Amino acid sequence: MNKLVTEFNEYRSKMNEKILDADNLIMKRLFNLDTNTYAEGALSVKTKEMLGLVASMVLRCDDCIKYHLQKCKECQLTTTEVFEVFAIANMVGGSIVIPHTRRAVEFWEALNE
Amino acid sequence: MNKLVTEFNEYRSKMNEKILDADNLIMKRLFNLDTNTYAEGALSVKTKEMLGLVASMVLRCDDCIKYHLQKCKECQLTTTEVFEVFAIANMVGGSIVIPHTRRAVEFWEALNE
Amino acid sequence: MNKLVTEFNEYRSKMNEKILDADNLIMKRLFNLDTNTYAEGALSVKTKEMLGLVASMVLRCDDCIKYHLQKCKECQLTTTEVFEVFAIANMVGGSIVIPHTRRAVEFWEALNE
Amino acid sequence: MNKLVTEFNEYRSKMNEKILDADNLIMKRLFNLDTNTYAEGALSVKTKEMLGLVASMVLRCDDCIKYHLQKCKECQLTTTEVFEVFAIANMVGGSIVIPHTRRAVEFWEALNE
Amino acid sequence: MNKLVTEFNEYRSKMNEKILDADNLIMKRLFNLDTNTYAEGALSVKTKEMLGLVASMVLRCDDCIKYHLQKCKECQLTTTEVFEVFAIANMVGGSIVIPHTRRAVEFWEALNE
Amino acid sequence: MNKLVTEFNEYRSKMNEKILDADNLIMKRLFNLDTNTYAEGALSVKTKEMLGLVASMVLRCDDCIKYHLQKCKECQLTTTEVFEVFAIANMVGGSIVIPHTRRAVEFWEALNE
Repeated sequence: MNKLVTEFNEYRSKMNEKILDADNLIMKRLFNLDTNTYAEGALSVKTKEMLGLVASMVLRCDDCIKYHLQKCKECQLTTTEVFEVFAIANMVGGSIVIPHTRRAVEFWEALNE
Repeated sequence: MNKLVTEFNEYRSKMNEKILDADNLIMKRLFNLDTNTYAEGALSVKTKEMLGLVASMVLRCDDCIKYHLQKCKECQLTTTEVFEVFAIANMVGGSIVIPHTRRAVEFWEALNE
Repeated sequence: MNKLVTEFNEYRSKMNEKILDADNLIMKRLFNLDTNTYAEGALSVKTKEMLGLVASMVLRCDDCIKYHLQKCKECQLTTTEVFEVFAIANMVGGSIVIPHTRRAVEFWEALNE
Repeated sequence: MNKLVTEFNEYRSKMNEKILDADNLIMKRLFNLDTNTYAEGALSVKTKEMLGLVASMVLRCDDCIKYHLQKCKECQLTTTEVFEVFAIANMVGGSIVIPHTRRAVEFWEALNE
Repeated sequence: MNKLVTEFNEYRSKMNEKILDADNLIMKRLFNLDTNTYAEGALSVKTKEMLGLVASMVLRCDDCIKYHLQKCKECQLTTTEVFEVFAIANMVGGSIVIPHTRRAVEFWEALNE
Repeated sequence: MNKLVTEFNEYRSKMNEKILDADNLIMKRLFNLDTNTYAEGALSVKTKEMLGLVASMVLRCDDCIKYHLQKCKECQLTTTEVFEVFAIANMVGGSIVIPHTRRAVEFWEALNE
């Protein structure tokens, strides 16, 4: 797998583990809840992951964007669909979202290699 | 129709007209682009409106939330689906999204009267 | 009790109930977690409420500010202490926090009537 | 003068006085610094007020927008110029700035009555 | 030209091209509109670029800051003027803008080498 | 001392000096005020530093987080206490705070080496 992707995932896993190891109950429950939020429900996992992606983009969180892009890839989102999510994020959030879109495109390409 | 809804729509229409009347080309094109962003594409209008809703919630824009809730209603989103969008918005954006969720629920009820 | 305070609390309670009634598991758990976050721990309730207050101020959420001001009042924070929290919020968050500080002062006065 | 304008100014003055009366040194200095920031320098007052306006718009602070619109009016900004500031704010900050632009236009009209 | 500047511009150009190549009409129009927003109008290009800079600073977008600093340089803004823009950004946006100001100063120096 | 810590402090000191050297009076006073804000008052330095930390986290400013973590370390905050601050920040600010928490944990470890 692409280096950009593996490095992101390795750091994320390593640090998440350290957070959980600290044994703060609120943090542990938030992590657990975060996972459950994107589970199949009335809305499909695919729809929920797109919702997570667009929310991450307008809030301009690169790591959150990368995480949800991976999940979108697992849900077999097409590049055309991903760009429609990008378009909404850029329209709602304005031109300050553009630099994050650049990095998102780079990561999306890495996921598709 | 419910007073909360009509007052919102009337003020919105009246002021949008004034903005367009000012004849600033950038503002006019942005308004036009904003409409086009949510048109049917690779993603359905329903999906796009949910994306607009979740983005508005995490950015905590009450008027944007109201606008997209109306569109979601037109797309026949169920209350269960709307709450799944709310859940993602609250998980991603945190407890500061709660007050906006309260007002969103009030508006959603008004739309369903 | 002051009208500003009772109206805030009544709307908040009424709408929170509606949110919980919708029976979305994520929302219910988030509400529960939110309450637990401010429970006595290594840090006192008083310290945690000040942390909640300053976070609400820099994120400019008037309703969150009101909620934490009430809790701070219950923890017997003095007006001098409250203003030191305001000062940090204004320093970190900038002059856009000033209008929220105005409304916070009004609510703090209402709580002290 | 228009009611929208006088009510805004009266509440602002009354609450600013209360904040200053609390005698928190940091708050007093921040207020003082805030005034000095917009004084004539290498950049004109007019330019600085436009900078204050666009910053307030992208940060979506209605009260800050109103304050700077008044100052822009005093600096004899034309409606065409004001809308060019609005256009930049909406382009940079995205469609979530639109509802604030509606209220800004309403206040600008009130100032021009 | 300075390495900090060339690397920024190369990555920006490369990724912008990829975004445009994806052929999403909304993204293409937004990019086009973004360019037009800063064209000479009732306000000069110099004024508009300062407006873009201050908006980027309070929204804390390092890449947007770099882009507008380059444009400000082309408009022959002096260092004294640039710092007056920085001062407004820091006053409005608070101390969280300071780290971005550090990087802005570094980039401004690179542009002036 | 750990490389992560020294590099952060060196860049911060070097650039702060350049900002002060530019001799913009507003910037100098803001820097001065920023220091005074965290001085012992009705609230202890330790409490104020926790307030600065939580504000930096919800506003997602990594450099501000690092700065306040150092100060918290000097105030002898325990890891358990630091995680309670993290928990409030994540609850109030949502899952977008998680990536910043990862980097905060890494820096906290570096400070404790």
